[in-house]
Amino acid sequence: MDLAEGLLKKDKRAAARLISMVENNNQEAIEILSKLYQHTGKARVIGITGPPGAGKSTLTDKLTKALRRQNKTVAIIAVDPTSPFTGGSILGDRVRMSDLYTDTGVFIRSMGTRGHLGGLSKATLGAVKVLDIYGFDYIFIETVGVGQSEIDIVKASDSVLMVMVPGLGDDIQAIKAGIMEIGDVFVINKADREGADRTKVEIEMMLDFNHRDWRPPVLKAVALNNDGIDEVIEKLYEHYSYLEESGKLLEKRRNNSEMEILELTHRSLMDELLNEGNKNEVRNLVEEVVHRRLDPYTASNQLIRKMLDTRRID
Amino acid sequence: MDLAEGLLKKDKRAAARLISMVENNNQEAIEILSKLYQHTGKARVIGITGPPGAGKSTLTDKLTKALRRQNKTVAIIAVDPTSPFTGGSILGDRVRMSDLYTDTGVFIRSMGTRGHLGGLSKATLGAVKVLDIYGFDYIFIETVGVGQSEIDIVKASDSVLMVMVPGLGDDIQAIKAGIMEIGDVFVINKADREGADRTKVEIEMMLDFNHRDWRPPVLKAVALNNDGIDEVIEKLYEHYSYLEESGKLLEKRRNNSEMEILELTHRSLMDELLNEGNKNEVRNLVEEVVHRRLDPYTASNQLIRKMLDTRRID
Repeated sequence: MDLAEGLLKKDKRAAARLISMVENNNQEAIEILSKLYQHTGKARVIGITGPPGAGKSTLTDKLTKALRRQNKTVAIIAVDPTSPFTGGSILGDRVRMSDLYTDTGVFIRSMGTRGHLGGLSKATLGAVKVLDIYGFDYIFIETVGVGQSEIDIVKASDSVLMVMVPGLGDDIQAIKAGIMEIGDVFVINKADREGADRTKVEIEMMLDFNHRDWRPPVLKAVALNNDGIDEVIEKLYEHYSYLEESGKLLEKRRNNSEMEILELTHRSLMDELLNEGNKNEVRNLVEEVVHRRLDPYTASNQLIRKMLDTRRID
Repeated sequence: MDLAEGLLKKDKRAAARLISMVENNNQEAIEILSKLYQHTGKARVIGITGPPGAGKSTLTDKLTKALRRQNKTVAIIAVDPTSPFTGGSILGDRVRMSDLYTDTGVFIRSMGTRGHLGGLSKATLGAVKVLDIYGFDYIFIETVGVGQSEIDIVKASDSVLMVMVPGLGDDIQAIKAGIMEIGDVFVINKADREGADRTKVEIEMMLDFNHRDWRPPVLKAVALNNDGIDEVIEKLYEHYSYLEESGKLLEKRRNNSEMEILELTHRSLMDELLNEGNKNEVRNLVEEVVHRRLDPYTASNQLIRKMLDTRRID
């Protein structure tokens, strides 16, 4: 059985294999996704993000279990930023710790942020396509909201669940601000800790500045005790109904498609720029620039001209 | 007097004007920098970064004053991330608050992270060139270490001063990790606060994992009281001597030049991709993809082919 056929027949190994191939920027996998693209668009994609330590993994697990009780199938993509300092992963043993592993209606995949030959965004969006074609009802993309690339990833979902935690303090206001505007539903997790109400007021105040048709609800939850989970699911349903009825879902998917096409194009051009044939050229230009016989602007123009000339010969 | 001539004659207004032009991706300004590029490479460029609230601005001001007492001239580029939520700036009134404004040997420029037509990195590196050609001895690039683009910017300097603060807590370990490996000299500012020694131990431990020829020193300072400033300057001198004697300075500038050439090339290609002529094409492709008559991979290939065909006609 080939991979495309396997995927359509809900073979999890075929899905896992295809995701690995996409991570390695494998051309065959891209062709399969190209061919099966018309089977996408049915899954609901939900981004789950927030600062480190907010309990995103626990919340994701509990949401998954609640959806399973409603007979929905769920795939989880945990985008795990590798610490640039230690080389280790930040989410750590997230996957190993989940007891969802034995559930046949659940698929869990961890993706590190390093070592994606075609770029993290391309790999993640490719994995979403694989799981959408497979037929999962829900796809969660879980990521720590620390960098622009993580933000770009959750942006590519239908709804974004922003997980906060009491007592974040004033100093990381800046970081909070960066992830604030993309949230559709806010949850203050670990709400049994001191300061939950204050955090709720702070978030509501920040949301007051943001005028959108959809006012994001700010909920409280204690995921570990399963408290507040059903309300989160309910608000996610409400947000989806809003998206469908207002026509925003199509608008959102249009934006996401545009971002993806441009990102893929950018990737292809950069891959070409950094390919073997150009390496020598780049090295020579760098030497000229370092010794100030050439300026970087002229060097860049020469590089583009060379790249296009090579293309022309093809 | 034209701008190029003005800059070489140390006219601050010419410098300010050129930086604004670079921010607007003005072609004339780029040509001037191209022409005057051989006058660069004399200034020492120091990146100053760290989490929000660490007191980077105050530290930068005190370092500037200390260098001025040694008769060095100093330019400060404050890269001020605009909050994506409020639209306001994060560093706030940083520039207005500085009493260095009246010092003729000092130049201060604030650059927002939004609205740079050619990209923040291109604008910042352009500004560095302007100030280097002008003849400043030191150029400080001050930025909040929150995003990848900020990290890329400070990476483009000769030395990176990493400003920390006591009691950052475990939760933002992830964020700390992201900026840790690029620091050449660490300062724990506000070291009169509780927990300074613990923070020092934590940083030293993280540095133990990182094997480099240069072991970054971890200093303590209270910038507001001018405590520890001279030691920071001394360690920055030491780092520079190390760079020169080990040959790492050339290596570093080679890397920086390569990054700049590739970034400029990337920018040019993306500008071309997003230009007026291609907008319609992109819009049509998006409609095809959204309605699943075309997949994003094929759409991207079509876009690249169209772009190259247009180039060919030129």
